[in-house]
Amino acid sequence: MGLKSFVEVHPDSHFPIQNLPYGVFRPEPGSEPRPGVAIGDYVLDLSAIASAGLFDGPILRRSDCFHQPNLNKLLGMGRPAWTEARATIQKILSSTEPTLRDNASWRQKALVPMDKAEMLLPVAIGDYTDFFTSMHHTKNCGIIFRGPDTPIPPNWFHLPIAYHGRASSVVVSGTDIVRPRGQGHPTGNSPPYFGPSLKLDFELEMAVIVGPGNELGKSIDVNEAADHIFGLVLMNDWSARDIQAWEYIPLGPFLGKSFGTTISPWIVTLDALEPFACDAPKQNPLPLPYLTEKVSKIYDISLEVRIKPAGEEQAHVVTRSNLKHLYWTLTQQLAHHTINGCNLRPGDLLGTGTISGPEPESYGCLLELTWNGQKLLSLGGTTRKFLEDGDEVIISGFSKGNGYNVGFGACSGKILPSL
Amino acid sequence: MGLKSFVEVHPDSHFPIQNLPYGVFRPEPGSEPRPGVAIGDYVLDLSAIASAGLFDGPILRRSDCFHQPNLNKLLGMGRPAWTEARATIQKILSSTEPTLRDNASWRQKALVPMDKAEMLLPVAIGDYTDFFTSMHHTKNCGIIFRGPDTPIPPNWFHLPIAYHGRASSVVVSGTDIVRPRGQGHPTGNSPPYFGPSLKLDFELEMAVIVGPGNELGKSIDVNEAADHIFGLVLMNDWSARDIQAWEYIPLGPFLGKSFGTTISPWIVTLDALEPFACDAPKQNPLPLPYLTEKVSKIYDISLEVRIKPAGEEQAHVVTRSNLKHLYWTLTQQLAHHTINGCNLRPGDLLGTGTISGPEPESYGCLLELTWNGQKLLSLGGTTRKFLEDGDEVIISGFSKGNGYNVGFGACSGKILPSL
Repeated sequence: MGLKSFVEVHPDSHFPIQNLPYGVFRPEPGSEPRPGVAIGDYVLDLSAIASAGLFDGPILRRSDCFHQPNLNKLLGMGRPAWTEARATIQKILSSTEPTLRDNASWRQKALVPMDKAEMLLPVAIGDYTDFFTSMHHTKNCGIIFRGPDTPIPPNWFHLPIAYHGRASSVVVSGTDIVRPRGQGHPTGNSPPYFGPSLKLDFELEMAVIVGPGNELGKSIDVNEAADHIFGLVLMNDWSARDIQAWEYIPLGPFLGKSFGTTISPWIVTLDALEPFACDAPKQNPLPLPYLTEKVSKIYDISLEVRIKPAGEEQAHVVTRSNLKHLYWTLTQQLAHHTINGCNLRPGDLLGTGTISGPEPESYGCLLELTWNGQKLLSLGGTTRKFLEDGDEVIISGFSKGNGYNVGFGACSGKILPSL
Repeated sequence: MGLKSFVEVHPDSHFPIQNLPYGVFRPEPGSEPRPGVAIGDYVLDLSAIASAGLFDGPILRRSDCFHQPNLNKLLGMGRPAWTEARATIQKILSSTEPTLRDNASWRQKALVPMDKAEMLLPVAIGDYTDFFTSMHHTKNCGIIFRGPDTPIPPNWFHLPIAYHGRASSVVVSGTDIVRPRGQGHPTGNSPPYFGPSLKLDFELEMAVIVGPGNELGKSIDVNEAADHIFGLVLMNDWSARDIQAWEYIPLGPFLGKSFGTTISPWIVTLDALEPFACDAPKQNPLPLPYLTEKVSKIYDISLEVRIKPAGEEQAHVVTRSNLKHLYWTLTQQLAHHTINGCNLRPGDLLGTGTISGPEPESYGCLLELTWNGQKLLSLGGTTRKFLEDGDEVIISGFSKGNGYNVGFGACSGKILPSL
């Protein structure tokens, strides 16, 4: 284990000194948003640390990146700045370093109890892209929507398929989601269905938060792509399956998705995840050269989705999956995104797509878990085909280290009835 | 005609006092970006007008909306502010008003020769959506990509189909476009094609610039949608047909589009276009109630695309179309976009999709004009199936009034070779 903080951290906590995920928060209602990192049950206020002159390295000493309402400026500064920030923060929080530990006034200013902090979106998201990189999810959706013949389209094994999502409706964990209204397939000669979605679903995803971008017209080499990734968040890409099924021919998902996408407030950095890197699945056929990596890795992150029906105390686990089930790596996704010269910008959000594992109990959405409403999913005393009003969906995820966890906290949202 | 400016305006100009389109510009290299309106061969610097205290109406008197690097703040203020601004600017520029006309120092500061002004993107685009609302374009693409059986999908007549586009790569007219690289269909058992796109195309479009948005979870009524539209721009949604055809199953266009989208620097307001409103096409079947308008109108705007090959002096007209060919109105598009609760924000860009008319000479892209490369298009002494390196594509558009034009200027871009 080694490294230890003077801040007490419970062994089950997602936020030991080995993690130090970044977020943006208000320490009290009405105060200015500012960057922070999670440590145990506290948020370390990075604007206070910066004001105290404790970021004393060559890159961050004169930067105002911690006096911003979002993390975009830090993200744009790239890996050297992130490495320096992590080293400084780990030192400041370490049990052997007296600077903050023994200064009650600084501690008072800089360590905010997490239950007092209001977490906000950590970044201003310029563009949000959602990939489709779990083979199991792709196969299941293909069978459900298009039948058992070639459920995986032939292009899928050659490129990480994706679509542009809606950036404006990305919200932070804890934000309620209003059940969308929209059109669904007509029955017989009637006009299309119109009303509240009858097939509201979650999608268990993770997403990359982009660091430095690229110039329009240039591409990012797949072997350098990791330097353009600041970290990962949990993501719930809420989906209205009836709206989606009716609208998506021929241009893809639109209103079936754009009513809301929830991300975790904490961005766990690639540095914190590095101990949990593992080999990515073998790819067959071999990818084209621009997608061929010297080292092809993914991260072992255990993921879980729970649903808490209205009025119940307890949330019920409905699926357990893992990021490592993805076919295409995060760096392949990012490199592919830029191969045509498309420019990424700091703070862009690149979703993985639904992360389904091979077994039915690891499927990442209700569409798959209930096979488009053909099976009932048990939630203790009640059942679900799709989400009902008042349901709260809670995604969590963590990697298990030797005596500590590196986790993401929760990514949750509750369904409110349609207006 | 009536209204006349003291600034000389040629009868063929797109920018008489009846128009007053908004843009953002630098009067000289390195100076701060600022809002302006076009008048004849000049740009009126609205920051200079504001600094001179000439915006003296109740809404704008104390606003800093003209001291901004983009128009987003003005857009968010809504129609009362736009009406006041238009009245003030028309008065200031009128031939009978001495305030600016007779003040050489103010004129010197406020009227910048257009050929000296560097035009920039007029808005910070939060999200870009592209619709698919020309029936002729939809039908032609359907036949080309999916064959002659039901070329128009059954959902098309019930909802304005759209997809999310890429906001980061929207550029202002005059920006070069690098030919994208990417994958295309494999031939036989070979791996997919990889290299510069061999089927690079333009798309003749217009786009709405959104004014005030809506709160996440709420919808905008179709009969109030016009108050959320600031104005229109010309748009070229550059498309790589080979990349698009291979990648778009099942989630829609992605890298075949996201390498660049060009808009005109000038936003022509709905106020300026009002004299050119005309009845929208009859819709059959009748749209659902949420898409049913009390008044269903579109604008009569003549559109033209020219191509200027590298090294040639002359640009050749390749198509002539008109905005009035659209099946779904701009207000229906906007209302549909929000019916699920998706939030629009000031400065959002809503493309119409390719505006093809009924006749072959009014088709809005090379895919249709050359029928996916099966026919050659003549450009004077040379021919095209798709765009070649060095080709400049110039879209223009205007409405013809009684003795004046209300126009958009040009929306142009030149193809640079792949890297």
